[in-house]
Amino acid sequence: MAEMSEHIQELFLKVPTAVLSTASLDGKPNCVPISPKKIIDSQTVLLSDQFFNKTLANIKANPQVGVTFWEGEEGYQLKGTVTVETSGHRYEETAAWIEDLGNKIGFPLQSKGAVIMNIEEIYSVSPGPDAGKKLA
Amino acid sequence: MAEMSEHIQELFLKVPTAVLSTASLDGKPNCVPISPKKIIDSQTVLLSDQFFNKTLANIKANPQVGVTFWEGEEGYQLKGTVTVETSGHRYEETAAWIEDLGNKIGFPLQSKGAVIMNIEEIYSVSPGPDAGKKLA
Repeated sequence: MAEMSEHIQELFLKVPTAVLSTASLDGKPNCVPISPKKIIDSQTVLLSDQFFNKTLANIKANPQVGVTFWEGEEGYQLKGTVTVETSGHRYEETAAWIEDLGNKIGFPLQSKGAVIMNIEEIYSVSPGPDAGKKLA
Repeated sequence: MAEMSEHIQELFLKVPTAVLSTASLDGKPNCVPISPKKIIDSQTVLLSDQFFNKTLANIKANPQVGVTFWEGEEGYQLKGTVTVETSGHRYEETAAWIEDLGNKIGFPLQSKGAVIMNIEEIYSVSPGPDAGKKLA
């Protein structure tokens, strides 16, 4: 497991959009923008599946993911594995949060699943000599 | 091969940052932001490697990539394969372009390679019922 610093956690929550990358078992990558995201703890984040298509198929076959986000010239990539919860307390909370979010922005949203990511590695994706450097 | 519409080409050029996703042969995804990008023709785009690390290692082992970009609630993912040119006419042109770009923004940039992507499929990544729909 790897721990996000306070600073990385702040940036993760601040950016309006991050990207979630997955891959099929035969190595075909897929990457989609994601907006709703929460921090469970310094090693765990929660995403929500509203519209996952190939992403969900990939995750079911291969739970390895990356989450990349940046602001200006500073960016990070979290790598780890996910589980998808479609019932239970965490899913119900996520479903209520996403429905509320949809109402607020006037774009109906429904969560199909709470995607729990265990962070195993953290990398810099900031441009410069440290691009790709493992931070944790 | 798949063809980008004029509209998709315009958005690809317009967004300040896209993301390039790759995967290792054992299906570990990687995704990094990219800024300089050009269109060669409706089926081919050119990216430049300044700071690729894991991305380059992945591409050498597995040339399948995705390029995702969006603006507001509209987004696309190009999927295809890449070749990397580190000499010759296209590389020399790319190196000059990237050096010039670095001078303009006051951030020294050097291209290590021209990454030529042949587009094989195009998908919507716009939120809504068509998320993940194959467009071409």
